[in-house]
Amino acid sequence: MNEPGASVLAGACPVPRGGYDRIVLGHGSGGRLSADLLHQCFLPAFANPILSALEDQAVVECAGGRLAFTTDSYVVRPIFFPGGDIGRLAINGTVNDLAVGGATPRFISAGFILEEGLAMEELQRVVRSMSDACREAGVTLVTGDTKVVDRGKGDKVYINTSGIGVVPAGRSLSVSRARPGDRILLSGTIGDHGVAVMSVREGLEFETELKSDTASLAGLAALMLEICPAIRCMRDPTRGGLASALNEIAAASRVGIQLQESAIPVRGEVRGACELLGLDPLYVANEGKLVAVVPPEAAEELVAKVRTHPLGGEAAIIGAVLDNRPGLVSMRSAIGGERVVALLAGEQLPRIC
Amino acid sequence: MNEPGASVLAGACPVPRGGYDRIVLGHGSGGRLSADLLHQCFLPAFANPILSALEDQAVVECAGGRLAFTTDSYVVRPIFFPGGDIGRLAINGTVNDLAVGGATPRFISAGFILEEGLAMEELQRVVRSMSDACREAGVTLVTGDTKVVDRGKGDKVYINTSGIGVVPAGRSLSVSRARPGDRILLSGTIGDHGVAVMSVREGLEFETELKSDTASLAGLAALMLEICPAIRCMRDPTRGGLASALNEIAAASRVGIQLQESAIPVRGEVRGACELLGLDPLYVANEGKLVAVVPPEAAEELVAKVRTHPLGGEAAIIGAVLDNRPGLVSMRSAIGGERVVALLAGEQLPRIC
Repeated sequence: MNEPGASVLAGACPVPRGGYDRIVLGHGSGGRLSADLLHQCFLPAFANPILSALEDQAVVECAGGRLAFTTDSYVVRPIFFPGGDIGRLAINGTVNDLAVGGATPRFISAGFILEEGLAMEELQRVVRSMSDACREAGVTLVTGDTKVVDRGKGDKVYINTSGIGVVPAGRSLSVSRARPGDRILLSGTIGDHGVAVMSVREGLEFETELKSDTASLAGLAALMLEICPAIRCMRDPTRGGLASALNEIAAASRVGIQLQESAIPVRGEVRGACELLGLDPLYVANEGKLVAVVPPEAAEELVAKVRTHPLGGEAAIIGAVLDNRPGLVSMRSAIGGERVVALLAGEQLPRIC
Repeated sequence: MNEPGASVLAGACPVPRGGYDRIVLGHGSGGRLSADLLHQCFLPAFANPILSALEDQAVVECAGGRLAFTTDSYVVRPIFFPGGDIGRLAINGTVNDLAVGGATPRFISAGFILEEGLAMEELQRVVRSMSDACREAGVTLVTGDTKVVDRGKGDKVYINTSGIGVVPAGRSLSVSRARPGDRILLSGTIGDHGVAVMSVREGLEFETELKSDTASLAGLAALMLEICPAIRCMRDPTRGGLASALNEIAAASRVGIQLQESAIPVRGEVRGACELLGLDPLYVANEGKLVAVVPPEAAEELVAKVRTHPLGGEAAIIGAVLDNRPGLVSMRSAIGGERVVALLAGEQLPRIC
């Protein structure tokens, strides 16, 4: 990997000549290997303009209206962690993929893959969390499926959720709509989810308990679009973190993005844990944060309003879209240095969502 | 298990007092344990009338139209088998769940859970199959997701597909609409898929190769509804087989169903393999067959037309709906005996789809 910035990619495997002939964990990272798999395997096979738009949700014309449709599988380990569990994540994650597309989330499906031997009480806890999360997000779980795999062929429970939302007439957010001068708005601190999960795996303890930020962004996204219908695009920076979300926008819009390091909110405990674990918070998963590309003239009003929302207290303008270096995300440090924020090449945190 | 008919349930575990405290393979069978899990865990948590209707697809009002929405995870082992593979199954199965609800299948999502170490070439074969199956069924795969789990926490590849279809105005099929006098129409031979998969697992050989019947039923279902819009309901008898599908209809409609054993088409090889393996073809999965409850006056014309369809050459009227014994499915043998065809209590064939 010759890209500048590759030094943050601790644990990344070098790509063999001719590409990989077997799946590695990095293919699920949300970073460069995920993108390679998408471009080399999935997109050519299913070639169609909706899939190839690479949004977090497909927007389709159907039955006379415009629908958003999205899917995600959840394989997080452990299934219970501070601030949430796999069930809450499975609802919020799919709700958020609809919401950041500007859709009103409506209907959810759930497909469970259970490992033989899973304690019924654990399944019931997960299902109750899903039910609570549906109620909080205002969605209805209308269809489901359960499969059981033999012991040792799963890991307690994997959940797929798919979601349908309604896209209001005239709304058209897209990762390809960022324009030079636009501002980057982030709704709060980064890295909370990933570090909360890692802290359980690694047995880390902090003075204050670090919790996953898993939450439905449906209300916050709707508020933002009400204030500023001209928002270019929104993403929830999950797997691959803020860096990956911004790289996708920079690539799709063919623009540069420059971040101000000092403007990006990171909790002290998250910063500390990341140093301990050799992680970069920019690449750590979030499950209740939203990053938006917004027109410059609306940025200040938007960030002020977002700060009044329960999920947006630490919202900030963290950077801007440039008219040069298309596809490149860079970051200026407090002391004026600049570094490239590349797409994650390997896998920092397997099975984080 | 005191039900008559329980003798067919080879391999069924006795239910412990107070129910199971851990997940067993039977919870994924599509039979009684699946129903128990649904009623004891999922339905109470997500209580809503759409989910509780227990159709193969949810029909929801959305964006001014009526949509069908369904989900299924596919965990079949092995992933390649005579007549198909997990990819083809994953598209056809979800298309069929939409089609038997009277919907026109339109959009598909795919969520992959890949096991670290899966050969890229195998994934590519699966993806090509999915692409072919989409084209044949007239659906578009518009959104997807890929997760990778560590070696030994999956089994090559699990696939979830969810689907959206459009339900024409006025159409209302339901498992609760069977009425005394209605006929049971089956579109072809039963047990082909399950026995084809088992034959690979068990290393069985037959004089003629037995193939899975995996196919899109979208065209056949549309043809049948065009001829007879008054069809009460349709099901594709997958996991749990014909017996489970008919038990669900009998229970939901509060009617009895009586089958004529001699009228049910079963291939000689399937019958032979079932005897060898201790299986009952009535409980073996099908992936390209359709069973319909049809008004008596339309039955003969329908079966004649279905026989002209490439997937319906061996279609037959296999039984009728009775006005007594609500919830009970029974079968008269060629020599006049009668037996109860109960819901499967344990698991005949784990991971068949």
